[in-house]
Amino acid sequence: MQGTPQTTPPAAYATTDRTVPTRSPDRASYDKDLVHAILDEGYVCHLGFVRDGAPVVLPTLYARVGERLYVHGSTGSRPLRMTGQADPGLPVCLTVTHVDALILARSAFHHSINYRSVVVHGVAHDVTDPEEKRMVLDALVDHVVPGRAADSRPANRKELAATAVIRLDLNEVSAKLRTGGVNDEPEDLALPHWAGVVPLRKGYDTPVADAGLAPGTELPDYLAMF
Amino acid sequence: MQGTPQTTPPAAYATTDRTVPTRSPDRASYDKDLVHAILDEGYVCHLGFVRDGAPVVLPTLYARVGERLYVHGSTGSRPLRMTGQADPGLPVCLTVTHVDALILARSAFHHSINYRSVVVHGVAHDVTDPEEKRMVLDALVDHVVPGRAADSRPANRKELAATAVIRLDLNEVSAKLRTGGVNDEPEDLALPHWAGVVPLRKGYDTPVADAGLAPGTELPDYLAMF
Repeated sequence: MQGTPQTTPPAAYATTDRTVPTRSPDRASYDKDLVHAILDEGYVCHLGFVRDGAPVVLPTLYARVGERLYVHGSTGSRPLRMTGQADPGLPVCLTVTHVDALILARSAFHHSINYRSVVVHGVAHDVTDPEEKRMVLDALVDHVVPGRAADSRPANRKELAATAVIRLDLNEVSAKLRTGGVNDEPEDLALPHWAGVVPLRKGYDTPVADAGLAPGTELPDYLAMF
Repeated sequence: MQGTPQTTPPAAYATTDRTVPTRSPDRASYDKDLVHAILDEGYVCHLGFVRDGAPVVLPTLYARVGERLYVHGSTGSRPLRMTGQADPGLPVCLTVTHVDALILARSAFHHSINYRSVVVHGVAHDVTDPEEKRMVLDALVDHVVPGRAADSRPANRKELAATAVIRLDLNEVSAKLRTGGVNDEPEDLALPHWAGVVPLRKGYDTPVADAGLAPGTELPDYLAMF
């Protein structure tokens, strides 16, 4: 409409009953940039679904493309097969967690963990369009090692057919995080117990080349940072 | 009965329909020692349960004591409150995953991750006995930092009352793991793409002491390994 002001996309996910925690609501965030950053830093999620009335939680790779998450696997794997058979899709909960530090307090009660997590509720849908599937497979490889998809042999028709991909839109999303240091009770501060933060070390060790690389194949630049 | 031969406890968990994967069954294991080792190496699990018919997956700390897993949290947290209200307990799935290495194959299709995971299906029960709760709280602290529970102020009555503990028996359990190197197709071996294993680095950085430690409080020996 003429004269309508330009609007920027909302910077936060709308809350729902299941994205507002019953406790420590101060640790919750719905900020899209923060959610994206947590999602993009990881590549293994825990995917929950319901089978015969009982919960199932499986670790699996994921990638984010805009406001969508994608998970892939064999067409024979349970959640992917269930998604393909479900109409209009499979209710899932996809959770990504980074542990950043151990918090050792003077009191056992105030021991804690610094972490950042994202919980996504929604309905997963089967991705059947071959072009979207190809895009997702590249995204999954690049999500783990940026730049890698272009430096590998793409999936052929048979491999593509053996791979199922499911999509989960980022609508009902929350992040939760603990940061900072020790929070002991004032009356515990004089206790003779060491207290502090033990940060987790993260990263990769030196890549180990497969036997029988084609002659002249060097470690690529995108792995040099590892 | 007289003359009955001594039997050692079974070394493996019995399989069930939901602990046998639909694919890569060669990656599954039911060996108790392996399951225990994977569980004892981690301290953050992903706990799945069903709320209003939909799955929920939350990260939380856990500890193993023999053939039982324990999870704790505020009495106000959702899964713990739901367990306390459920009769005869809350169906859950508790999953622990370690990522060990990235597997970069010449083909995008054979990219993978070396990992070790344990999936436990069962019914969580509220722990109400104060002595068992105290034992669990010590175990949770010691599970993250062995030796720490004895070097911290134990929970007082108020803290104990504010903490809920749930128990999950290790009956329906499976491990799943991928180890080893790159598995490319024979016809891809001559491709000019680097391939190999990128191991993840794990560990801790130097502990950072809280401000205001009691005078003379040194870094304890059990943290020196960090």
